[in-house]
Amino acid sequence: MADINSKFDIGVTTGPIRGSRKIHVGERRVAMREIDLEAGEPSVRVYDTSGPYTDPEVQIDIRRGLPQLRRQWQLDRGDVEEYAAREVKPEDNGQLGPDRSGGVPGFPNVAKTVLRAKPGANLSQMHYARRGIITPEMEYVAERENLGREKLREQPEGQSWGAAIPEYVTPEFVRDEVARGRAIIPSNVNHPEAEPMAIGRNFLVKINANIGNSAVASDVASEVDKMVWSIRWGADTVMDLSTGRNIHDTREWIIRNSPVPIGTVPIYQALEKVGGIAEDLTWEIFRDTLIEQAEQGVDYFTIHAGVRLPYVPMTAKRVTGIVSRGGSIMAKWCLAHHKESFLYERFDEISEIMQAYDIAYSLGDGLRPGSIADANDEAQFAELYTLGELTKRAWAQDVQVMIEGPGHVPMHKIKENMDKQLEACGEAPFYTLGPLVTDIAPGYDHITSGIGAAQIGWYGTAMLCYVTPKEHLGLPDRDDVKVGVVTYKLAAHAADLAKGHPAAKVRDDALSKARFEFRWRDQFNLSLDPDTAEQYHDQTLPAEGAKTAHFCSMCGPKFCSMKITQEVRDFAAKQNSESYLAGTAPVEGAEEGMNEMAERYREGGDLYIAPND
Amino acid sequence: MADINSKFDIGVTTGPIRGSRKIHVGERRVAMREIDLEAGEPSVRVYDTSGPYTDPEVQIDIRRGLPQLRRQWQLDRGDVEEYAAREVKPEDNGQLGPDRSGGVPGFPNVAKTVLRAKPGANLSQMHYARRGIITPEMEYVAERENLGREKLREQPEGQSWGAAIPEYVTPEFVRDEVARGRAIIPSNVNHPEAEPMAIGRNFLVKINANIGNSAVASDVASEVDKMVWSIRWGADTVMDLSTGRNIHDTREWIIRNSPVPIGTVPIYQALEKVGGIAEDLTWEIFRDTLIEQAEQGVDYFTIHAGVRLPYVPMTAKRVTGIVSRGGSIMAKWCLAHHKESFLYERFDEISEIMQAYDIAYSLGDGLRPGSIADANDEAQFAELYTLGELTKRAWAQDVQVMIEGPGHVPMHKIKENMDKQLEACGEAPFYTLGPLVTDIAPGYDHITSGIGAAQIGWYGTAMLCYVTPKEHLGLPDRDDVKVGVVTYKLAAHAADLAKGHPAAKVRDDALSKARFEFRWRDQFNLSLDPDTAEQYHDQTLPAEGAKTAHFCSMCGPKFCSMKITQEVRDFAAKQNSESYLAGTAPVEGAEEGMNEMAERYREGGDLYIAPND
Repeated sequence: MADINSKFDIGVTTGPIRGSRKIHVGERRVAMREIDLEAGEPSVRVYDTSGPYTDPEVQIDIRRGLPQLRRQWQLDRGDVEEYAAREVKPEDNGQLGPDRSGGVPGFPNVAKTVLRAKPGANLSQMHYARRGIITPEMEYVAERENLGREKLREQPEGQSWGAAIPEYVTPEFVRDEVARGRAIIPSNVNHPEAEPMAIGRNFLVKINANIGNSAVASDVASEVDKMVWSIRWGADTVMDLSTGRNIHDTREWIIRNSPVPIGTVPIYQALEKVGGIAEDLTWEIFRDTLIEQAEQGVDYFTIHAGVRLPYVPMTAKRVTGIVSRGGSIMAKWCLAHHKESFLYERFDEISEIMQAYDIAYSLGDGLRPGSIADANDEAQFAELYTLGELTKRAWAQDVQVMIEGPGHVPMHKIKENMDKQLEACGEAPFYTLGPLVTDIAPGYDHITSGIGAAQIGWYGTAMLCYVTPKEHLGLPDRDDVKVGVVTYKLAAHAADLAKGHPAAKVRDDALSKARFEFRWRDQFNLSLDPDTAEQYHDQTLPAEGAKTAHFCSMCGPKFCSMKITQEVRDFAAKQNSESYLAGTAPVEGAEEGMNEMAERYREGGDLYIAPND
Repeated sequence: MADINSKFDIGVTTGPIRGSRKIHVGERRVAMREIDLEAGEPSVRVYDTSGPYTDPEVQIDIRRGLPQLRRQWQLDRGDVEEYAAREVKPEDNGQLGPDRSGGVPGFPNVAKTVLRAKPGANLSQMHYARRGIITPEMEYVAERENLGREKLREQPEGQSWGAAIPEYVTPEFVRDEVARGRAIIPSNVNHPEAEPMAIGRNFLVKINANIGNSAVASDVASEVDKMVWSIRWGADTVMDLSTGRNIHDTREWIIRNSPVPIGTVPIYQALEKVGGIAEDLTWEIFRDTLIEQAEQGVDYFTIHAGVRLPYVPMTAKRVTGIVSRGGSIMAKWCLAHHKESFLYERFDEISEIMQAYDIAYSLGDGLRPGSIADANDEAQFAELYTLGELTKRAWAQDVQVMIEGPGHVPMHKIKENMDKQLEACGEAPFYTLGPLVTDIAPGYDHITSGIGAAQIGWYGTAMLCYVTPKEHLGLPDRDDVKVGVVTYKLAAHAADLAKGHPAAKVRDDALSKARFEFRWRDQFNLSLDPDTAEQYHDQTLPAEGAKTAHFCSMCGPKFCSMKITQEVRDFAAKQNSESYLAGTAPVEGAEEGMNEMAERYREGGDLYIAPND
């Protein structure tokens, strides 16, 4: 499975996810995953974030990077220019010299030239959308979101809290959602390896996985591995939150090998460049960092432009103050200089950079609550309304925007977050971290936050940023990443179901039917994590025969309610009595027939399998 | 830690939970757990389900059983009689002979005599409550629920959906809640080892852990161990769902060693007695099983009396039919005989037994949905309204009742379950299994169900039945039990927080404050699972010094937002400017002072610790 590169060992997991195969659908050859079932059941098609790594037809070479799916589309639009990329500076990698000794190896296949908009042009998907242009990216997204939706017979049923999910997603619908700012398609022109995807409340709820080095732990090989591992299990985007040294090179490895959009928080790298002294940050250093990352292909930037000087003292009486790294850096800068944030002051200039590469804003919630005690307070909502103001400024320049949200919020205060965000930010996609619904379970914060994530996803949040079991305690390892991703995938799916998304329930129904019919392999294969499902089953009943047995270890054969139900069902089918099936009161008319059938039923003997058969 | 008994090895975990000590509060010496904190912070008192096992003063002897806390209270009431216990029959233990060869060892300290109500008496707590009597059990519950609530300064804040949670719990309040059926105190007269606890929507949300053998796996030693392990982490009650052989003896070991109420599903054992043939069940065999278990001390019985004949065919078109074992057994019986269920027909006779021992009903939802597709259907709600009818019949005999609920329910259909239960069952406590909010994540169903459990707990469910990672796949082992319990503990706590329970938020605030102040040990000790929290922390920063470090592995010292916030706070404190703290717009008046402070702030230098310090 591992793909080892000789000089520099980066092993990633490749090969199909158990029990499914990669397919490519429609004119744009949209990657999906098809799960074939037993017993003549129709196959189930699922959304696939895993990229070429699960495609046996593709030869993976981490040192070369992925194929450039979108490059020709970009060139065809005729509004890009190629130019020599900015030189990598020592401070980009934590003051490593040109030989980069002591650092990670540089990515071997760095492009010498990069793309940006021609003067006066605007590469953002929103800009095209507003001019009525349906891009290949929008077509890709439409096909991807439909997931074979035309096959469905059922009407969606759910409580969507005002969302407008269509029965069928057309490219025109995607264009319209992007034009009005209700969805974004993060797609930096310098990340042509990415498969287009949409984030918006009228699409499937998405999830993000955070990875990244810190000054005290981690290395580039394990970060690339975590990226590939996280998309295998369902991460729709990945944020590289590296700090410390090697930031530039680590990011290059990640982007060149990522089929999903990559997000960053540029202020982290900018701070490294000034030796960690927040007061020494300048607009010039920050701007240079944006260009550096734009040329590498970062698809969305977290920008904490809503942390304004007057809001900072509102956090002084909080239990946990400011818990956002970016937020605290900007707060410190504002206080030290007693000046308004340069991110706020220079916002329109930042938007010009975003236009030139089509980078989406992820407007950071630097004042998000870090505890139940601080949820929904003055500082948090003051910032949110500023993010709303900035959203409109970005939209005025046709720049795509999403809004980051909390954090730590008890359940009864979650909906207010969504309602205020919709109101303040004009339905720009909401992108929340959890929220955690209690503070008392470190070690289990993927779950405390999964509870909040499912709810806020249901209410309308478009993307959920995962939390791993290590949250608040340490850096996630590979296993933590998987648990975090699967937890958030199930939370996002639960939200889709509750919203009445037409493509959601198919998989639940197929899995439940497989469960009822004891098709164990189908049950494993349809699950979010087939490996773990099978492993848990095998811990109690390891024999291969148990995978076709009509019982399991929980109840044993005698107590199997599924088996008994099958008997009930067979019996009811024989009755073929409409009146019997209708009423809620005992049915008089069918009684004689019922007695007769009851007699036959008893004579028919028992269908149980004895325990040791 | 393990307490090994020579002839028969049953090891259980004893000793205090890390970072806390057992205390006994008030006249009734209510067991609680006190977590002492560093830095002069007030200690935090938490609810304690772990019984004498975490009390270093108590000598545990599994072969003798626990001390009989409630025995004298029961005798003092003067309404009980002692009589010779029913002889154990071969069919009680799966047709083992009197020497029980091939079975588990019998419990060595079985009582020869047992208690029941004198003729005409009624031992139920509801009966006392309705006659205005405040029992020691009610006093114990009041003290236990208060958790030192008098110390709180804050008013509760939350959305309780019509619950009536008092600021302070008095014994009179407990009596009133029990009298009107809104809470139960499960307390079989033959389980005097149990520490009284209440289940009701105006008390802390409780959780139940299921354990038990099946015909294909498990043994008695591991079941006793799982019981002790589950209460260590917070299980408020335990259900013994054993099937197969040794049912009677396994239960005896569990009850004699359990400080929490024990529930069972008597139909499981009754079915074993008729060789697994549902049609052969009779009222006489079932009644004898009730007496057998009543004398052993089972505190609540799941009785599937709502599975009525006419409802059975309503399940025929379901995706997953009937998934409740008890429900399917009764459905099969009804169909085979074409008769109304004997549980329904004999309900008042069952209530007479419940009265004589004070056993509470847990009215089983035999027709609960087993998949998203089947949620909230006709069969489910038809049964629920019958459970409501039976609740009133039980109450007419002063018998305590709770109502079991689903199962598998998408988020948008959860509240309807709670609303209909409140309406149909007159606020009798609701006791739900999850519900799971999606079917697609076997291996992670503790999480899919934890999401639903937190929500329905918030809406008013009084007790949440845990689900482990092995759900649908296999029997839970010790680790699964712990993960299930902690997951449900955090879900129940999240519900308490959201309801505005006055005793809930103290622990969140204490933990968050510890987190903000880098009191790592306090953070671990205040968490639901201190061992896992510390272990996760130590995986990245194992050095002992890291536990007092003012940073952690996630961001490293330079990026620590907590540290930066402390600087912001110190700075704001120095300002001492009311006007500055007030507004949401930049403050003009304080500007000069701010500039001055900003200058000093810059001169003061940086408080960061360099990465390798």
